[in-house]
Amino acid sequence: MKGSNRHLTLLDVGAGSGSMSVGFAQLIGPEGHVTAVDVNPDVIQRAKAIAEVQGVTNILFQTSDAYKLPFRGGSFDIVHCHQVLIHTENQWEILQEMLRVAKPGGVVAARESDFETQVIWPPLPGLLKYHDFSLKLVTASGGCESAGRQLLSWALRAGVTRGQITTIFSAWTYTEPEDRKVWGERPIFSICLSWIVAEYVCLCLAAGMIDMLRGSNNDAGITEADMDEMRDAWVEWVDRDNAVLAMLHGEIIIRK
Amino acid sequence: MKGSNRHLTLLDVGAGSGSMSVGFAQLIGPEGHVTAVDVNPDVIQRAKAIAEVQGVTNILFQTSDAYKLPFRGGSFDIVHCHQVLIHTENQWEILQEMLRVAKPGGVVAARESDFETQVIWPPLPGLLKYHDFSLKLVTASGGCESAGRQLLSWALRAGVTRGQITTIFSAWTYTEPEDRKVWGERPIFSICLSWIVAEYVCLCLAAGMIDMLRGSNNDAGITEADMDEMRDAWVEWVDRDNAVLAMLHGEIIIRK
Repeated sequence: MKGSNRHLTLLDVGAGSGSMSVGFAQLIGPEGHVTAVDVNPDVIQRAKAIAEVQGVTNILFQTSDAYKLPFRGGSFDIVHCHQVLIHTENQWEILQEMLRVAKPGGVVAARESDFETQVIWPPLPGLLKYHDFSLKLVTASGGCESAGRQLLSWALRAGVTRGQITTIFSAWTYTEPEDRKVWGERPIFSICLSWIVAEYVCLCLAAGMIDMLRGSNNDAGITEADMDEMRDAWVEWVDRDNAVLAMLHGEIIIRK
Repeated sequence: MKGSNRHLTLLDVGAGSGSMSVGFAQLIGPEGHVTAVDVNPDVIQRAKAIAEVQGVTNILFQTSDAYKLPFRGGSFDIVHCHQVLIHTENQWEILQEMLRVAKPGGVVAARESDFETQVIWPPLPGLLKYHDFSLKLVTASGGCESAGRQLLSWALRAGVTRGQITTIFSAWTYTEPEDRKVWGERPIFSICLSWIVAEYVCLCLAAGMIDMLRGSNNDAGITEADMDEMRDAWVEWVDRDNAVLAMLHGEIIIRK
């Protein structure tokens, strides 16, 4: 797509940390432009700071609701979301909005985890607890633990035909020794460290995550001892030669 | 590897239908050579016939036990198995045998399903039944429903170091319309058609599969009505625009 158009415009819905939005801006190049939106103004402030630190200027950050995008129809060549629909309800309404603001001939692209397929090995008790906890974290505020496999159904419900859609699954994994270390340093790992860290991390991650975490904590009755057990298990996991972490992700491209 | 050696030798352990072994022989080229073994002599006869039909001559088929390979140590550049360890016990003993017959500097490669991550959508009752049945099919004769995630552990238990191993996960999927049709015509799909077909298909698939199927049938109390329900559900699935089928596979390469 870039080959024939140096002035690509991309909308990133649910920008979260902003790392992906900034990556898109760098990829698209100085003649293209990225607009990154998130419903949480704090998240947008942090994402903006990341772009400034990296000297990326072809990007605009804006607080807005994915269900009511503040853009005219047919505004963007590419409309993208990543791990957004998994945390929402009536996901097809967001896809309809994304389709509305895409240009005719443009694409809507989404990638969502299928948390039910999360694989963690070895099966240390603290990791099994984390697996259950992470599923509850997704569902506690109305998210969907099997978003990856339902992405295609949501796209069809948004009103497009099967012929407009290309869909695949990809394998997300942190299994090689250097990847295990990266995972150990990721925010999601820090969720286990303490509730204070968790709240900070979730502020950085995506809107509503703190409420999800709190809701999950209340619903599941997860204690400080549980949190310690999960943290210790992840610390052990990082150093285990046979450690494995993987999950299926659903991916979809819709041609408008 | 082929770039520097036109005379590559490859051993395919658990050749099954032989389609992959024949593919390797074509890939390696006329100056290389493939040896394909399977414990079931009927399977070997069928695989041999496939090679003959395709005019592939740089391949030798041989009945043999994966736990006691009839080859000297250091005989092959590449020793490979695909969906074999998942159907066995003490999987590391097979990997030890594979390592023994690999040349120093050669590689042992394996790919195994992680059946617990099997994703089928939409969740028609007949497909949910099939999901449970297929897990039982794997475990009924001592196979492992989470082979994909345990592959790395088995390799370490076979005596190699983590530094010798590269491992990834891949996403196996039949979701695009043309892929759904291919899946509908695959032997595994036919398992649902009738026990007669199932037994024929399993003869073609791999040693011991019939016993697994029979064992699973007996253990699970699956009736002809269940089989009909699963068959009807798969027929419906092939024609559903929102149909999805995916699974994580574990992959490993060990450098000797």
